[in-house]
Amino acid sequence: MSGDEFLTNGWPSVTAERVIVRYHVRGDAASIEARALAIAVEQSVEMPLAAIDEPAVLSDIVGTVEAIEDLGGGMFSVRIGLALATIGDDPGQFLNMLFGNTSLHDDVILRDAEIPERFRLHGGGAPELRRRMGAPLRAFTGSALKPQGLAPERLADLAERFARGRLDFIKDDHGLADQAYSPFAVRVPRIAAAVARAARSTGHTTRYIPSLTGDLDQMREQATIARDQGLDCMMVAPMIAGFSSVRALTRAFPEVIFFAHPSMGGAARIAPELLIGRLFPALGCGAVIFPTYGGRFGYSPETCRELAANARPAMAVPAGGITLDRVSELLDFYGPDTMLLIGGSLLAARERITEAAAAFAGAVARHGVSDDGH
Amino acid sequence: MSGDEFLTNGWPSVTAERVIVRYHVRGDAASIEARALAIAVEQSVEMPLAAIDEPAVLSDIVGTVEAIEDLGGGMFSVRIGLALATIGDDPGQFLNMLFGNTSLHDDVILRDAEIPERFRLHGGGAPELRRRMGAPLRAFTGSALKPQGLAPERLADLAERFARGRLDFIKDDHGLADQAYSPFAVRVPRIAAAVARAARSTGHTTRYIPSLTGDLDQMREQATIARDQGLDCMMVAPMIAGFSSVRALTRAFPEVIFFAHPSMGGAARIAPELLIGRLFPALGCGAVIFPTYGGRFGYSPETCRELAANARPAMAVPAGGITLDRVSELLDFYGPDTMLLIGGSLLAARERITEAAAAFAGAVARHGVSDDGH
Repeated sequence: MSGDEFLTNGWPSVTAERVIVRYHVRGDAASIEARALAIAVEQSVEMPLAAIDEPAVLSDIVGTVEAIEDLGGGMFSVRIGLALATIGDDPGQFLNMLFGNTSLHDDVILRDAEIPERFRLHGGGAPELRRRMGAPLRAFTGSALKPQGLAPERLADLAERFARGRLDFIKDDHGLADQAYSPFAVRVPRIAAAVARAARSTGHTTRYIPSLTGDLDQMREQATIARDQGLDCMMVAPMIAGFSSVRALTRAFPEVIFFAHPSMGGAARIAPELLIGRLFPALGCGAVIFPTYGGRFGYSPETCRELAANARPAMAVPAGGITLDRVSELLDFYGPDTMLLIGGSLLAARERITEAAAAFAGAVARHGVSDDGH
Repeated sequence: MSGDEFLTNGWPSVTAERVIVRYHVRGDAASIEARALAIAVEQSVEMPLAAIDEPAVLSDIVGTVEAIEDLGGGMFSVRIGLALATIGDDPGQFLNMLFGNTSLHDDVILRDAEIPERFRLHGGGAPELRRRMGAPLRAFTGSALKPQGLAPERLADLAERFARGRLDFIKDDHGLADQAYSPFAVRVPRIAAAVARAARSTGHTTRYIPSLTGDLDQMREQATIARDQGLDCMMVAPMIAGFSSVRALTRAFPEVIFFAHPSMGGAARIAPELLIGRLFPALGCGAVIFPTYGGRFGYSPETCRELAANARPAMAVPAGGITLDRVSELLDFYGPDTMLLIGGSLLAARERITEAAAAFAGAVARHGVSDDGH
């Protein structure tokens, strides 16, 4: 911190505390220094430095180029220091300062960023999920309610069949919103009741995770409906809902563990290791859903490994085209603080969904016994 | 509309009404049909079609491949029909269905989409701005308050100097939020008062456009503060604030004309012609700010022309490194329903900011007289 007050009017002084942000920039050695400085300026004062006459703005607010590394192949890693004072306490403003205008430049990927202490996930991650499930050190199972277009009764019936297979979690498909053919206020209580009924019959704790959508008011109403049903896990899509509103939600419902869905994550421009691995937990989400390697989305194993590691203590929830025969491989890879999410390949069992769910639950349970994971 | 009820429980039936969405997909002729179908499935039911046993879901909910066109160079234009029933009335859900999971695939760009009637901008665009400004058929001028880190007094002083140059609009830099060194509740009334003072002295109507940030509650509080100062134009960044919350805001303040800022627009994956040109007005924003060709962001002239045309009746606000010597060229290009936004190059005039602003205002006024635009 600079400690120097430069304002004479009683506002808190700007300090020199900075967040280090890393970008991957396509360019050449001759121009990369100028390009790095241009990014530092764009993500801070966004104006010609020569026109700034306030010394403290030049020293404490303008972004600083901290390091440039040649990664080869025309790619450079650029580290820039952004003033924490410009971010304040709003995670939307954090995203704005990290990548707002620079997202419009197609030579730059936002690769990584320090997460200020004020945005760290406190509680509500994998350890708390494990405590609530009363589960020892094993991975969790999950599936999704699909397809869109089914009425509440049909979704509830499907959830009950999954739950009778002793899955740990059953979530809404992220496409289920508040559609006229399946309104949230009707769908969620019915599904919650169906899952509770199945759980009583199996003796296994199965949790239903409804998806919250709409503006902040609507998400709060939906979260209240869900909480009134005794649900303590819910899902949001931060890139659609908006970072600031998601954090308002996670703060308003501190007892709820929020699962972050990657919808609109646009992996090509913001590294998923950062967006899903670091930023979604920074909003208070205790579990992050992401497309695993080997599925239909094609993140690399290295990306998935770093993403999951970054997300801790949030629970890693690999998904996206996982098949039953990959349970063992994926748990070896991700370790036990993992919830495997299998949708389509369980649904493909059709009238044998309960048996397929039971096979999935059994495979994860057996893996937990024979191998404690990594 | 199909008109067929397939639900027996009293929910509205799913109908076959569809929104046509256009994607650009990198691929080859041998696989493009399968890839197009995969996108149609991903953006609708997101599960194996063979596992769907509800005939109406297969016919009315699953996305349909409407057309595939080879654009050459390994690029294809793919038109997909998405069921309007899955979107409902929530613009966040609209974005989710347009590009949610597919944004994670890097072979696809979301290129264009029909905007359902329910999301069209009604009132509050360029004609209404023109009416409020009492301005004949000429383009408008605008500038931005920068840099970050200045205290409210300094920003107010800067705004007053711009206004004395008879600019039409003065907006907050999109980096100005609710920072401790310049809180919204202090900054906005001071700047509004300074601009009003200057306007009284010049006799020219100058409007101040504050930037709203944070979650929906915070944006509503800020909009109320601004409205209490008599301000009727405000700015939001929909990709940060969240589509649903922006529309809640534009509906809550119908008398306010909202300027949409492109921050986090990530042009490489969602065509700006669609995102900025069509979707931001669909949230109720009456003016759209975008980086013009020839500035520091490098959209092509073709992109800018289509974006501005798509946005009507919203006001087109080209920005991003415009210099005074380009006024005439840009007004020839964009026509009179335009607000030119010049920040840095006016600020670079330093102690002669008022004179630079006056030269800008004069250039736009003269262009209006000598040439009615297009």
